[in-house]
Amino acid sequence: MDRPTVLVTGMSGLIGGAVRRQLGARYELSALNRRAVDGVPCHRADIADLAAIEPAFKGVDAVVHLAASVGSSAPFDELLRANVIGTYNVFEASRRAGVRRVVYASSGATVSAYERDMPYRALAEGRYDEVGAWTPLTHETPVRPAGLYGVSKVWGEALGRHYADAHDLSVLCVRIGHVTAEDRPRAPRDFSVWCSQRDIARIIEACLRAPATLRFDVFFAVSNNRWSYRDLDHARRVLGFEPQDAAETYRT
Amino acid sequence: MDRPTVLVTGMSGLIGGAVRRQLGARYELSALNRRAVDGVPCHRADIADLAAIEPAFKGVDAVVHLAASVGSSAPFDELLRANVIGTYNVFEASRRAGVRRVVYASSGATVSAYERDMPYRALAEGRYDEVGAWTPLTHETPVRPAGLYGVSKVWGEALGRHYADAHDLSVLCVRIGHVTAEDRPRAPRDFSVWCSQRDIARIIEACLRAPATLRFDVFFAVSNNRWSYRDLDHARRVLGFEPQDAAETYRT
Repeated sequence: MDRPTVLVTGMSGLIGGAVRRQLGARYELSALNRRAVDGVPCHRADIADLAAIEPAFKGVDAVVHLAASVGSSAPFDELLRANVIGTYNVFEASRRAGVRRVVYASSGATVSAYERDMPYRALAEGRYDEVGAWTPLTHETPVRPAGLYGVSKVWGEALGRHYADAHDLSVLCVRIGHVTAEDRPRAPRDFSVWCSQRDIARIIEACLRAPATLRFDVFFAVSNNRWSYRDLDHARRVLGFEPQDAAETYRT
Repeated sequence: MDRPTVLVTGMSGLIGGAVRRQLGARYELSALNRRAVDGVPCHRADIADLAAIEPAFKGVDAVVHLAASVGSSAPFDELLRANVIGTYNVFEASRRAGVRRVVYASSGATVSAYERDMPYRALAEGRYDEVGAWTPLTHETPVRPAGLYGVSKVWGEALGRHYADAHDLSVLCVRIGHVTAEDRPRAPRDFSVWCSQRDIARIIEACLRAPATLRFDVFFAVSNNRWSYRDLDHARRVLGFEPQDAAETYRT
């Protein structure tokens, strides 16, 4: 039986590497990337150029869209090119090529400005004695984006919703927590929002395996962190996702 | 006592004209517009050009941002220029100039893809015998944008949320219903989503008058329509807004 073909944008990044290790044995992977990626078919192009990226989508069953300008310091012009225009181009190229599902790498930054207020602030700052009880934010909580980066990810989710409604495309958005190169928490905030490399790769695979009838949804992705304020029950229920790691393990 | 200064973008449009009639006596109005607007100070520039629009914001207390590319048929490049880049430029110019409040003309199109499903579809199509009971969508209901236009308005609201959080700017978003040139319902859907010219102008004035402590909020704006699915209680409670017109009056 043929293995499903999955195009990964931004495969050269940290999450791209984790996804490649997770999926490599079970999927026929290809890359859409600015830099060359060795060992898989790689279409090199800038996602801000729709005509240049279109050939990469031919014959693809699903797309994992990770390519993005990241971080709170990215200037507007860069976010506009990579995240706003680039994400539109990825959805549009997917639609034109008849791709069945796009897994969109959204971000916890769509809601992390809630950390300006209690109790989320205390959770993010590691002042646990001030936390008290808290209710997790769910995928249905109104967005509160941190920075223009977070705004650009709200845009991507809204685009995904539109494409899922108006076209024959399933779109699953994963609001990724903080994935680190050392694959462990790095700062106090990570005890709330960290996501291990294998947990992010596993939820992305769970999105690829979800039934075709799932047209659109949004999931938080963090490890099983004691101090998290981001709901995982929805991903558990819909995707059967259970995180394997927990930031607390690394607390000394 | 000095009258507050209000800069209106897109004053030459239908809603711009209604706002001008409503506010003219109580506010010092100026216009930022591509076409010339007679009778008020008018800064002519394209909102896609940040440097070109900046001078219009000097000394302004509040901005009413109406300028946009509208309608379901607008091509992506036009929405990108006017609504995505243009709205960023308006918030950024407001921040730089020390404007205190931006009233952002969002749209019911941020949620109107709910009309794909019952009971909203029956309400929008005028098939009232099929409606049954329904719960209005509120400003906290997850967005479901209709078309790329709706997506661009979700972007604008997310930008507003970010600017209100990160900068000293109050942002009030008004999700405007269908305002018509003839100022009455035109199609079956209008018995649900119509907003009269005076009702839209009055809620915009209510936003300008709201206490400075109101940092960010989102309001639906429709007339008092019997078949509406968009909540008005939030605007009633927070702004004291009460629509004066009702689509039903025009049903024959």
